[in-house]
Amino acid sequence: MKFTCPQSVLSEAILTVSKAVSSKSTHPALNGILIEANGSEVTLTGNDLTLGIETKFVAEVEQEGSVVLPARLFGEIIRKLVPLNVLIESNDNYETKILCDRSEFKIMGMSDAEFSEIPEVDSNSGVQIECGLLKGMIRQTLFATSLDESRPILTGALFEFEPDRLSVVAIDGYRLALRQAMLHSDLSGKVVVPAKTLNEVAKILSGVPDAEIVYVLFTDHHILFEFNQIRIVSRLLEGEFIKYSQILPKDNKTVAKAKTDELLNSLERASLMAKESKNSSIKLSIKPQRMNILSNVEIGSVNEEVTIDLSGPELDIGFNPKYLIDALKVMESEWVTLEFSTNVSPCIMKPVNHGFYTYLVLPVRMA
Amino acid sequence: MKFTCPQSVLSEAILTVSKAVSSKSTHPALNGILIEANGSEVTLTGNDLTLGIETKFVAEVEQEGSVVLPARLFGEIIRKLVPLNVLIESNDNYETKILCDRSEFKIMGMSDAEFSEIPEVDSNSGVQIECGLLKGMIRQTLFATSLDESRPILTGALFEFEPDRLSVVAIDGYRLALRQAMLHSDLSGKVVVPAKTLNEVAKILSGVPDAEIVYVLFTDHHILFEFNQIRIVSRLLEGEFIKYSQILPKDNKTVAKAKTDELLNSLERASLMAKESKNSSIKLSIKPQRMNILSNVEIGSVNEEVTIDLSGPELDIGFNPKYLIDALKVMESEWVTLEFSTNVSPCIMKPVNHGFYTYLVLPVRMA
Repeated sequence: MKFTCPQSVLSEAILTVSKAVSSKSTHPALNGILIEANGSEVTLTGNDLTLGIETKFVAEVEQEGSVVLPARLFGEIIRKLVPLNVLIESNDNYETKILCDRSEFKIMGMSDAEFSEIPEVDSNSGVQIECGLLKGMIRQTLFATSLDESRPILTGALFEFEPDRLSVVAIDGYRLALRQAMLHSDLSGKVVVPAKTLNEVAKILSGVPDAEIVYVLFTDHHILFEFNQIRIVSRLLEGEFIKYSQILPKDNKTVAKAKTDELLNSLERASLMAKESKNSSIKLSIKPQRMNILSNVEIGSVNEEVTIDLSGPELDIGFNPKYLIDALKVMESEWVTLEFSTNVSPCIMKPVNHGFYTYLVLPVRMA
Repeated sequence: MKFTCPQSVLSEAILTVSKAVSSKSTHPALNGILIEANGSEVTLTGNDLTLGIETKFVAEVEQEGSVVLPARLFGEIIRKLVPLNVLIESNDNYETKILCDRSEFKIMGMSDAEFSEIPEVDSNSGVQIECGLLKGMIRQTLFATSLDESRPILTGALFEFEPDRLSVVAIDGYRLALRQAMLHSDLSGKVVVPAKTLNEVAKILSGVPDAEIVYVLFTDHHILFEFNQIRIVSRLLEGEFIKYSQILPKDNKTVAKAKTDELLNSLERASLMAKESKNSSIKLSIKPQRMNILSNVEIGSVNEEVTIDLSGPELDIGFNPKYLIDALKVMESEWVTLEFSTNVSPCIMKPVNHGFYTYLVLPVRMA
C-alpha cells in the first residue's frame, strides 16, 4: 500500500475514527486503525465492537492495499507533522513508512485479517435529518440517560421512528427528556442507542454544518448514521424500553412561566449552597408574580427570587437543583414553563417557543 | 462589618487570594479568606502557612470589622452573582449576609482570631523589577525545579541577589536552568523560593501588565513580592543550594546553531516514538550542516533531520528528549546554540539573541 495526501486531511480523518478505537484493549487490533487504499480513495476505520466509524478521503494512491496501525501513536505522529503532503507506504510485512518533509517514521503494523470490519447495515428505508436538528435532539436528551448499569436499557436513548415523526427519549429514573421532530420517512420502529454512541456522534457532528443531511438506518441489532463521507455504526441495546407516554401527566393546575436564563442563574447560585449538605435539595416557593428558590444548610442559607407569570394555585415543592439546571441549559427558548400538580407529583418543563421538547422531573420530599 | 463594592472587583480579589488557601485542611480557618474592612478599603487575605496572599480594594465601608469565610463557597457564590454591587454584612456572631440584586445568601463565618495573619517582611532594601522580566525569569527556570522531596532544597529556585544583578537558578539533578538579569539594587544575598510559590506568583503576574513594577524583599525566613495592591509572602526553603557555577562547563568544542522552532518540532515528533519504550531516549547525530534525531524502539523508528550550523567536531549523543523540549519552549529566541564537549559531558543550550539564559542538561548513555 502506498499513497500520498495532505497532512491536515489525514489528521482529521484519524481524529474522527479514533473515537471508535479502544485505548487499552488487550487485543492489539482493537487499538488500531484500519487503513485501506483503493482506486483514488483511502478509507480509515476504527471499531471497538460496540461502535464502528469509517471515513473516506481522496488521495493519490500509487499502490492499493491495507494495514492496521496503532491508533494513538499513528494519530499523534500525523498531528505533529508539518502541514505538507504525507506519504504512507506499507510493505508485505506491514512495516509502514511515514514520510513528510524531513521526518521519517517507521511503524510495525498488522494485517487487516486481525481487524473486525464494521457490520453492513442494509435497509431499504431510512430517514434523512438535518445535522443541526439531530445535534439538538441528542443534546436535549443524552444527559438524561442513566449511568446505572443494573438497568442497561436506560443507559441508552430510545429512537422511535413513526411515518411522520422521530421521537428521542431518555429516562434515568428521576427524570425523562423527550424531543420530537416532524420528519417524513417510510421507516417505522423503535431502537435504543447507547449513550456512548450518541456522545461520539454528537462530537463528530459538532464539526459538521447544520444544513448537512444525515442518513439514519437501522436493522435489528445496529443503527447507522451516514453523512459527509463518514459512516458510524453502533450496536443497539437489547430489551424493552419504558413506555414513556404513560408517565407524562395530563393535567397540571399550577403553571409558572419564567425567563430561562434568569431561572437558570438563580438555580445555579442556590445549588452552590445546597451542595454543602448531603441531600443537596432546594425548595421552590411559587407565588403569584414570583418564585423563591430556598436552601437551608448547616453552613448557611440562600434565598433567590425570580419573576414569574403564575396561573393556578400557589405551591411549595422540593427538587434536586441539578435536574432542573440540566434541562434549562438545553431548553433553547427565551422563556420556559414549569407545570405542577401537587408537591409529590412530577414537574413538566417546556420551552415556550415550540412544543417539541418535554422534560419531566420528580420532586424530592422536603424536610 | 458592612461594605458594598462591585461584584467584579470582589470576585477578582477572591480569585487572587484563593491561590494561598488550602482546600482541605482539617483546620477550618486555613480553608478560609480573612475579610477586613477599614476606612475606605477592604483587605482580603489567604494563608496556607507556606504562602500568604493579601489584596486590597476600595469599597464603600459602612461599618469596620472583619470575618473569616470559607474560601471555596464564598468564591463560587460571588463569581456567580449578577455583575452589580454586592453588600457584605457580618454580625457579632460572624453570620455574614451577602446581598446582590435578588440574591440573598447567609454564611456562618469565623472570628479573625482563628486566622494566621501573614508575616510582616520588613527590610530597608529591596529590588524593583519589571513584571514582564520577573515573569520571564520564573518561566525559564521553574520547570527545572525538582519534584523529589528527598532533597527539599531542590524543590525550589535559588534567587541570588548581587548589587548589579539577579540570578534565578533551578536544578533537578538532570539539568540546570539559570536566568540572569542586570538590576541595580542595594540588596545582597541568596534565598531559595518554593516552586509552589513561584507557580502562584506566575499565575497572578500573568494578569498584570509587563511594565508594572514588582518590589521584592526578603528576610531570613520569608520573601515578599508586592505590586498593584497585592502582597505575596512565602516561607523560604532552608538549607544550602548547590554551588551551580562550578557545574557549568567552560570549553565546549562542538557548537551547533539551529532554528529554535524547527528543532523543537522535530524533537517533539521524535519523542512520540521514544516514549513507546521504557528508556525513552533519543540520539542526536550531529554532522556539518545537519543534525539527525533518531530513536529505535520495538514498535518502530524515527529519523528527523534539522539544518544546523556546526563548528567543531561531529558528535553522536543521547538525551531524554523531554529535557531538551522543556528548554526550547522557553528559549525566547529565534535561534538557539547547543554546545557539547564529549558524549558523556553535559550539553549547554543558549539563546542566540542574548547571554542571560543558560540551560545545562546531562546526556544519557546510548544503547
